[in-house]
Formats: sequence, structure tokens, C-alpha cells
Amino acid sequence: MVRNLEYPKKPQNTVKRYDSRGTYDLGAIHSIINTTSVLHVSFAPSPDEPFPAILPMIGVMGSFEYPSAGIDEPLDCYLHGYVSSRIMRLARASDKGLPLCVAATKVDGLVLSLTPNSHSYNYRSAVLQGYAKPVESDEEKLYAMRLITNKVVDGRWENTRVPPDNVEMTSTTILRVKVETGSGKIRQGGPHDEAKDEKRDDIIEKVWTGVVPVYEAFDTPIPSTTNKVRQVPSYLDAYVSQTNSGNRQAALDAVNEP
Amino acid sequence: MVRNLEYPKKPQNTVKRYDSRGTYDLGAIHSIINTTSVLHVSFAPSPDEPFPAILPMIGVMGSFEYPSAGIDEPLDCYLHGYVSSRIMRLARASDKGLPLCVAATKVDGLVLSLTPNSHSYNYRSAVLQGYAKPVESDEEKLYAMRLITNKVVDGRWENTRVPPDNVEMTSTTILRVKVETGSGKIRQGGPHDEAKDEKRDDIIEKVWTGVVPVYEAFDTPIPSTTNKVRQVPSYLDAYVSQTNSGNRQAALDAVNEP
Repeated sequence: MVRNLEYPKKPQNTVKRYDSRGTYDLGAIHSIINTTSVLHVSFAPSPDEPFPAILPMIGVMGSFEYPSAGIDEPLDCYLHGYVSSRIMRLARASDKGLPLCVAATKVDGLVLSLTPNSHSYNYRSAVLQGYAKPVESDEEKLYAMRLITNKVVDGRWENTRVPPDNVEMTSTTILRVKVETGSGKIRQGGPHDEAKDEKRDDIIEKVWTGVVPVYEAFDTPIPSTTNKVRQVPSYLDAYVSQTNSGNRQAALDAVNEP
Repeated sequence: MVRNLEYPKKPQNTVKRYDSRGTYDLGAIHSIINTTSVLHVSFAPSPDEPFPAILPMIGVMGSFEYPSAGIDEPLDCYLHGYVSSRIMRLARASDKGLPLCVAATKVDGLVLSLTPNSHSYNYRSAVLQGYAKPVESDEEKLYAMRLITNKVVDGRWENTRVPPDNVEMTSTTILRVKVETGSGKIRQGGPHDEAKDEKRDDIIEKVWTGVVPVYEAFDTPIPSTTNKVRQVPSYLDAYVSQTNSGNRQAALDAVNEP
């Protein structure tokens, strides 16, 4: 029997509105994080500052302890940043780790119904909450740097000048977020209208309803002015075309009712 | 002389890392907010909860007081949500308004350089901080609902069943965020490598460098099973094709050095 691991439901991560769209499945949540180009990371900058801060960051799920762990197993979230940035200083200064909220959202479609009130997006969103500390050992740092680089383009790490030298290692800080809770929310399908509108001919004959599929697209890679490699390498070419067709297919699949 | 309004630089919104990429220009920041499908909104759920919360929300800049205000003039940020959600309850309960951070990020390209350390994204990001209160008057609520709907698809409000009825009006809460500070960050151009790598033939002959343009794409609208309007309406058709060509062009333009 296949058993799916789930994040524990706590007050702060339990999906209330449209709770049938909620998921606590590790695999579903980690996959959304790993396929989202930019994560939004929130933290409280200081006790006397009323506003939380949000940073757009690159991050990826991984386990240095169990590198063979699957996407549906317990993982940490690794975030990449500059050594002296505020978030890194706060994480370094805190004993337990800096409390962070990490969010990833992918829009899969514009859902257009008869009345603005029932308009929606098809989407996949994930939120993690946990305590962040800077990674100390070079081995774990390299492990996370490779994961992060290969999240941007699969196979890129192995096809660049590696390993990072001393200056590069010390100027980069990797945060490891130990996840306390997580949740996801997924909306799929077409528009859902109410009977009061669907029964009125004057409305249904006038208003187009349906879904505009939305996805992140890559265009043809453009070489830099200093590039000396004549052809786009096959790993990059394959990544671009596979990501494009996968992203588009996910948006089209989301049009169908779950 | 054209004078551009800027948000005041305060400790919490001053761009430090790569400060030349920072912008405080109202027009630039508001445009990023208005063209991003999903905003990430952060708030502190309660004093005894260590983690900030992040919600993906739909929002738009506008001014009910001065509806003719341009995108580069002082505007509020209107956010749309369900009446009994936690963020709405907190905003309703607070006298000054709920302190929020609103973030919008658009990825324009993967910037691939000789070594992972200099990899980057081309991007446009914006952050606003301000106090949120629920909109009280029906007039302002309708103003904001129309702006929000037409942000999703330009002209959609006028082509659906409007105005919302009483049930729809009372089940929806619109937050108005009075902006205290804001900042943006924009990265454009190709990869920037260091001389130590650019001088080594073994590296430059092996590693492809350049930019993969990235943009949000719309696919052909797919009618719902109950749709009765035979042809995709011209406002929707135009919006899909104009957004696609505009988004793609922005990603291609970002490849050039600013």
C-alpha cells in the first residue's frame, strides 16, 4: 500500500476557505516549490518594525542527510542569498533559527465565468513555515548550491566552471529551513456559475465563459556577446523544450475538472 | 520638465545589495504590481505566532478619490478576498489598519554565466508596505471590484453580469492598503563574468553563456461546457494576443543591457 506523508494540520496552516482544494501532501507541496522560479520569503525584520518583509528568493527542497530522499519525503528548504543581507544576518544571530514563511504560486489559467464574483484562477500554491539557519559546512553548502543551480536549468552545474572558489564560497550564504508546517492549495477546472445566472438567457447568450490557460514560457536561448560555444548545448535545448511542453500541458490539464 | 514621484527611502525599503538596480519610482513600482497575476501578501497573524503568513492574492493599484490619477501618481493598493478570511478579520479589528507587505515579482530571463556564482535572473520586482483596512462604501467597493476584474482581463467587467447583487457584495471584502513605503528592483542584461574565468580558454570553450527569455504566456481560450457564445469575443481575443506579444517583447528587451 502506498502511504503519502502529510504535513500536520495546525491552526496556522489549515486551509479553511474552499478546504477541498487544500492539500498537506509532501510530494504535492514540494513539487510546487521546486518548479516555481521565484519563491517569496517573509520574515519579521525587528520587534519594533510593524511591517513584515518579503524577499523574492531562489530555493529548492533537499535533504543533505538523506540525499536519496524522494520529493514526497521529509525535506528541508534551501534558500540562496548574499552573505551580508539582512535576512542572513538575522538568521545567523538567532539561536533557534529565523521564523520564515516561504510561498510559491503558479497560475495555470484565468477562469472566466458569467459574473465577476465567480471569476477565479486555476492555480497551484504552496506555503511552508519553518526556522532558517545558515548552512555551516562546505559539503552541505556545495550540495545545496548544486541543487539550486540545477533547479534553474537541469544539468547546468555540471556544465559550468565548478567548484566555486574560496571567494565565491564565502560571499554566498545558504539558508536551511527546517519545515514545521506546510500546506498547498490547488484549483482546477472550468467556471462554476450559479443557477440564478445560468437560467437567464440574456446573460448566457452574451457572456463568454471558459478558461484561458496560463503558463511560464521559455523563448529561444540568446547567446551572450562573449559566448564562444557555437551551438546551444543539448542539455539546455532539452530543458527549454521539455519545460515548455510540460508547463503548457499542466495548464491545459488544469482546464479539466479534478 | 517631467518630475517623477518617488517613494521615500526608509530603512525598511532601501535597496542595499546591487543598489543600482533599485527604483523608488511610483510609475515603475505600480506597473509591476498591476501586471503581475498574483501578489504575495504577508502579515503577522498574532503576537504569539512566530511565523508571518503569506497569502497569494489578486490586487491592483487605484485611487477612488482621484480616479483619473495616472499610474505614476500616489495610489492605494486594492486587494480582493473572502469576507470571513483571517486577513479580513484582522484588518477589520485593527484601528490603524493591518500592517501588510505586498510583493510582486516577474521573471524575464534565466541569465546563464560561466560559473554558478554569477548566474542570475532578469526580473522586475516590487514591494509595498502599508496599512490595510476594509473598504466600507459600496461605491468604492464597486470601483475596486471593476479595477480588479479588468486587471485579470481588460474589459471583462463590462462584458459580464454586473453589478454584483447583495449577496455577492456582502460576501466579498476589498482591502485598501494605504502605502507607506515602496521599492522596486530591476535586473536586465546578459551574464557578467569575472576576468579570472573569461581569460581561461578551457572554460569559455566549454560553457555556453547567454539568456533564456522567460514570460507568462496565454494559450487559446477554451470555452466551458455551458458556454453559449460561439466565438471568442474580440476584447478577449485582443487581450490574449496583446498580452502575449507584450510579455514576450519585455523578456526579449530585458536581454539588452539597460
